[in-house]
Formats: sequence, C-alpha cells, structure tokens
Amino acid sequence: MTQADNASLDLIFRKARTHNGWQDKPVEDSLLEQVYDLCKWAPTSANCSPMRLVFVKSKEAKERLKPALAPGNVGKVMSAPVTAIIGHDMAFYELLPKLFPHADARAWFVGNDAMIAATAFRNGTLQGAYFMLAARSLGLDCGPMSGFDNAKVDAEFFKGTTVKSNFICSLGYGDSSKLFPRSPRLAFSEVAKIL
Amino acid sequence: MTQADNASLDLIFRKARTHNGWQDKPVEDSLLEQVYDLCKWAPTSANCSPMRLVFVKSKEAKERLKPALAPGNVGKVMSAPVTAIIGHDMAFYELLPKLFPHADARAWFVGNDAMIAATAFRNGTLQGAYFMLAARSLGLDCGPMSGFDNAKVDAEFFKGTTVKSNFICSLGYGDSSKLFPRSPRLAFSEVAKIL
Repeated sequence: MTQADNASLDLIFRKARTHNGWQDKPVEDSLLEQVYDLCKWAPTSANCSPMRLVFVKSKEAKERLKPALAPGNVGKVMSAPVTAIIGHDMAFYELLPKLFPHADARAWFVGNDAMIAATAFRNGTLQGAYFMLAARSLGLDCGPMSGFDNAKVDAEFFKGTTVKSNFICSLGYGDSSKLFPRSPRLAFSEVAKIL
Repeated sequence: MTQADNASLDLIFRKARTHNGWQDKPVEDSLLEQVYDLCKWAPTSANCSPMRLVFVKSKEAKERLKPALAPGNVGKVMSAPVTAIIGHDMAFYELLPKLFPHADARAWFVGNDAMIAATAFRNGTLQGAYFMLAARSLGLDCGPMSGFDNAKVDAEFFKGTTVKSNFICSLGYGDSSKLFPRSPRLAFSEVAKIL
C-alpha cells in the first residue's frame, strides 16, 4: 500500500472537526487502550516517549478537574464521555536505558534542564497530536482545549510526581448539529517555501 | 466510515519507521503541497496555525543547512531527497483576525509573551506531528531529527522574520535495508490512568 485510502484521509484529516457537543454514547476503556496502542508507534526523539495520560471519566474525577477549567470549557468537559489530560514526564530520561538501549541517551539529559524541558514539551506534544489522530482513525471525535489552569491540574492530578500537564482533550462521538462553520486555513504559499 | 482500514493504520502508525537511509527517488513538489493540504485541517488552539515550513531540497540549500547539523545527522540530511525545517511564527496572533474571525483572539495574546511562546511551540509542534502523519499517509517516509543548532538555522533561514525553528524532518522513500530493529514502547499501564 502506497497511500491511505480517501475514506481514511477524510476521517483523520479532511472531514474531522473539533467537537464541543457530544452524543450520549460512552467510550469504552478498551477503545482508549487501542488508541494508545496505535499512537505509541509514532516517532519521538531517541524514542523518549514522555507523554503521560489521565482519562477523566467518572463524575468524581470530572469534579476534580472542573475548578481548573476556563469558564467557557466547563460545559464542554462536563458533558463529554471522557476528557484526557495529556501531560509529559519531566523525568522521561530515566527510562531511556529501557527505551533507547543502544546508547547512553540518559547521559545526554542529566543536568541539562533547558534540554530536558524542551524535549519533554516537544515530544509530549508530538505524542499528543499522534494520540488525537489515532483517536480519529478509530472513529472517535476529539475536542482539544488549552483553556485551563495548568498549575491547578498539576496540583490535583500530578502531585508528588514529575508529570506536568500540557493540554486536555475530550473524546467521544460528536454531535454534529452543534458544529460551527469551519474556519479558514492558511495556503501552502503562505506557510511554506521550497529551496 | 467509523474506523480507518487496517492497511491505513499500518501505513500511518504500526508499520511506519523512522528512516535514516534513502532510496534514490525524488519527492515531487506537488506531493509536498498535498501533504500540507491534508495536515492543515488538524486542530490548533483558536485555529492559530503557527507552523511554518522550509523544504531544503537543492544542493545549495543543503549546504546552508549543513553547518547547523549535529555530526551524526549530516549524512542523513545530505542523502535525503528533501529535509523540512519545521518552525513556528512567534507573531502567529497577527493572523487571528483572519483565522478565528468570530472573536478578538488577537487580544488574548498581545503583550503576553509567555502565552505567545507556549502557544507557538505547542501548536507548531502539534502541526509538525500532523505533518509527519500526513506525509506517511501519502506514502512518504519520515526521518525527524532534533539534533541541530536551532540558533544557526534561525540565523540562516529565518533572519529578519518572526519564525523560530522547532525540529527538522527528512522526507522520501526509505531504504528498509538500513533500518535497525525497532525499540520498545511503553505499555498503556505505564503511561495512563482511567479515573
């Protein structure tokens, strides 16, 4: 196979929309595992794989997330079947002897805080994007948000750990009647040069 | 369609590998445009779309990139049909009146340098991931790298602009004979919790 079929490209890219309204249809835990088991294969620097996930699904967990949300995101999150907190482990490099066994990659990071921070954020974010496209490829809709208080989420969900929150993303089956018209995108000529 | 077909999932996620060795087969400019025209649809915060791309394809352009590369990446880049510089525009918010016309989103950013920096890096990186998975979905192989001097690349390719480099990624048709065995990935239970 040299290209994905058009229906898959539509599902993952062309026709997928960010959803804020959700059908009353649950997301099975096994499907969340399937999404991860797809996105885990996509590349990170030295296979460092810093992304960590908390799936906020129960009423109790949602109540813990609620005080950290921007007002405009409260309704969206409370009505979603599940909202993922996408974070990254700032101590990711401690797993490099396992994840990148053919070199001492841990030594590249120890003591280099700027490189640790950039690598965790960049690669955790790459994995967050892979996660969303994997979710779409398995039929889920996504509603990503960065309108929340990261420090509050870290204190509530990652206290005593080395994980920092990055963004959050609701998952479920979108209610298309609640979509707005799609906003424009930049053209190739506006963003790219071929030298 | 509720899920992408297995062949597409294999192509994009399960069987795709990071390539460092390349077949002697060119990448058409029109295919690079097709990749962008897929990935541009995937979500960014307030549709801010900060990713900017320079495709380093000619011998002359490669010579300009060469001095910025980590020694281990020189051969990989010089032998690739094309290497993309993935950057993000720190002045992305100036385009929000066009990209997010239903609110004054520009005002959320002006004067808030920390939010500008985090938003540009996070969303430019999300788009970099979308770009790589779109490339794979159209049959290209990717070889992403962060082993280079960002300041040198910025001075050489983005001088006088508000664009900063993020990572680079070679594109082409990989030579599978040069692949190493695949490194392990973390299991769902090691990275995720369902609450």
